[in-house]
Amino acid sequence: MKTRLLTVSDISKIIDMADVLKAVETAFREYGLGQAEMPPKIYLDLRQYNGDFRAMPAFVENSAGLKWVSVYPDNPDKGLPTVMAMLILNDPKTGFPLAIMDATRITSFRTGAAGGVAAKYLARPDSNTLGLVGAGAQAKTQLLALLENFELSSIHVWSLRDDEIEGFKNNFKDLPIEKASLEEAAGCDIVCTTTPARGFIVKKEWIKPGAHINAIGADAPGKQELDPQILNEAKVVVDDIAQARHSGEINVAIKEGLFPVNDIYATLGEIVAGKKAGRVDDEITVFDSTGLAIQDIATARMLFEKAKQNNIGHDFDVVG
Amino acid sequence: MKTRLLTVSDISKIIDMADVLKAVETAFREYGLGQAEMPPKIYLDLRQYNGDFRAMPAFVENSAGLKWVSVYPDNPDKGLPTVMAMLILNDPKTGFPLAIMDATRITSFRTGAAGGVAAKYLARPDSNTLGLVGAGAQAKTQLLALLENFELSSIHVWSLRDDEIEGFKNNFKDLPIEKASLEEAAGCDIVCTTTPARGFIVKKEWIKPGAHINAIGADAPGKQELDPQILNEAKVVVDDIAQARHSGEINVAIKEGLFPVNDIYATLGEIVAGKKAGRVDDEITVFDSTGLAIQDIATARMLFEKAKQNNIGHDFDVVG
Repeated sequence: MKTRLLTVSDISKIIDMADVLKAVETAFREYGLGQAEMPPKIYLDLRQYNGDFRAMPAFVENSAGLKWVSVYPDNPDKGLPTVMAMLILNDPKTGFPLAIMDATRITSFRTGAAGGVAAKYLARPDSNTLGLVGAGAQAKTQLLALLENFELSSIHVWSLRDDEIEGFKNNFKDLPIEKASLEEAAGCDIVCTTTPARGFIVKKEWIKPGAHINAIGADAPGKQELDPQILNEAKVVVDDIAQARHSGEINVAIKEGLFPVNDIYATLGEIVAGKKAGRVDDEITVFDSTGLAIQDIATARMLFEKAKQNNIGHDFDVVG
Repeated sequence: MKTRLLTVSDISKIIDMADVLKAVETAFREYGLGQAEMPPKIYLDLRQYNGDFRAMPAFVENSAGLKWVSVYPDNPDKGLPTVMAMLILNDPKTGFPLAIMDATRITSFRTGAAGGVAAKYLARPDSNTLGLVGAGAQAKTQLLALLENFELSSIHVWSLRDDEIEGFKNNFKDLPIEKASLEEAAGCDIVCTTTPARGFIVKKEWIKPGAHINAIGADAPGKQELDPQILNEAKVVVDDIAQARHSGEINVAIKEGLFPVNDIYATLGEIVAGKKAGRVDDEITVFDSTGLAIQDIATARMLFEKAKQNNIGHDFDVVG
């Protein structure tokens, strides 16, 4: 029995948003049905280096495993990505390590896919304008995922950095992408916020009736992108209640007493599993994404199977 | 920048008890000085498969990382080891994954080394008889570590299984190993208990004055090898107070009210760091070992450096 190593170039050859969307949708369904296991993340905080690591273990469907991800905001100055991740995929029946894989790309794809699944269940099916608040790596995978389920006639991109918008346009030359004001981007049918803002930048009055918002950027205490009034009026769906309270979009509004935890309508898993209904009419829906280990493990399993089918990767022995 | 894969055969080529002892001693010293970081282990418990996983992150000296270890007691029936582990070693300055390595052998060597370090600081330097209660894989690495610091004139091995004792003798043909009764093994200068007992098997009256005991076997709630009277009389040193209370040798005696937590004399780190003294005269000393992530990470760092020096392993890209 061998363990397979999948490097970043192996993963790049086989990763595809349509497949990741399916894997992540199944992961949320299993979690909603109470059939997944996901202990809370643990943090190894290295303040002396302005960085931290997070251990994210999970069991979902026929797979167990762990993602080990580091977040070092000063890394771009050193020519390294802020976020780097490795993942170990195990057989849950024996613990055998099936694969070790680079998970940096998995992380960005599965985050996009969560937004895609949320929009599939929560956005109006006829949504055709997309607003992107922020134009970095996260915005790209949000767009990739939404393209799988929506016919987008115009994509309005806002960023503080013009070079990011240019880069974005160059990445998607065939798509109707336009530079937009914050207000224009926020006024679309589907809005994805992917900034590191600490204080809301999207105002309530910009959001149109029936809009769906993927709130992606807030991933730590103190981070916030949306006017709390949006949360008050909207149907708020989270990926995980404990994580969203701690570090998701709702964390600041909760601390400030502007959003009661009981106003969380559902988890995305409950909606995907059919335990709770999705949108009604022209209400506003918000998906607060913090990122779950089940998304990583389900994506990794799909990639492992695809790698085996396509003879991608490098096998090695762990028992000897 | 590349990440290095070290397989089980790579590790076997370079692992050496003298090196592991040094690395583990340094890890305990750093921990004792409060210069290491080690969040509590997290468990992913898969009762439906009678197995569990443990995520063990740590920062020590110039390294960060995580061991991901599975424990499946039914595995030997399937031709697989009960314990399997992988380890990710990172640069603490950037999070960059320096190496991925098989950690099954690291786990057994670093456990042996903890016993070796404990005996170096706690056993009488002129100890020359060793008693091994249990003759499995753990007993072997205890012996390997003790051979580095003690001149052993006789090694008394007890096991319920004669084939284990024969296997043990065949592994160490040049050493003065004898099959022994439980009482004989327990009556040596240094005693290592490595059984899965749940209820004490080593009696107080068998232990001689001035003896040192490495209590290795107890690693889960309910496990116990030593008569609680031994703990009451001895100077008890643990690797980590929280882990020892939860799942070390002292856990049962604490629950039964037979050993007050306040009677723990010190952590091994405090002793190695010189914050507390070791043995005095003919008292009995007990080291309660549960296994710490710092031991794994320090050992992994040493192996990574050695692998680089000897061109061992396989490099791959994680940033691309």
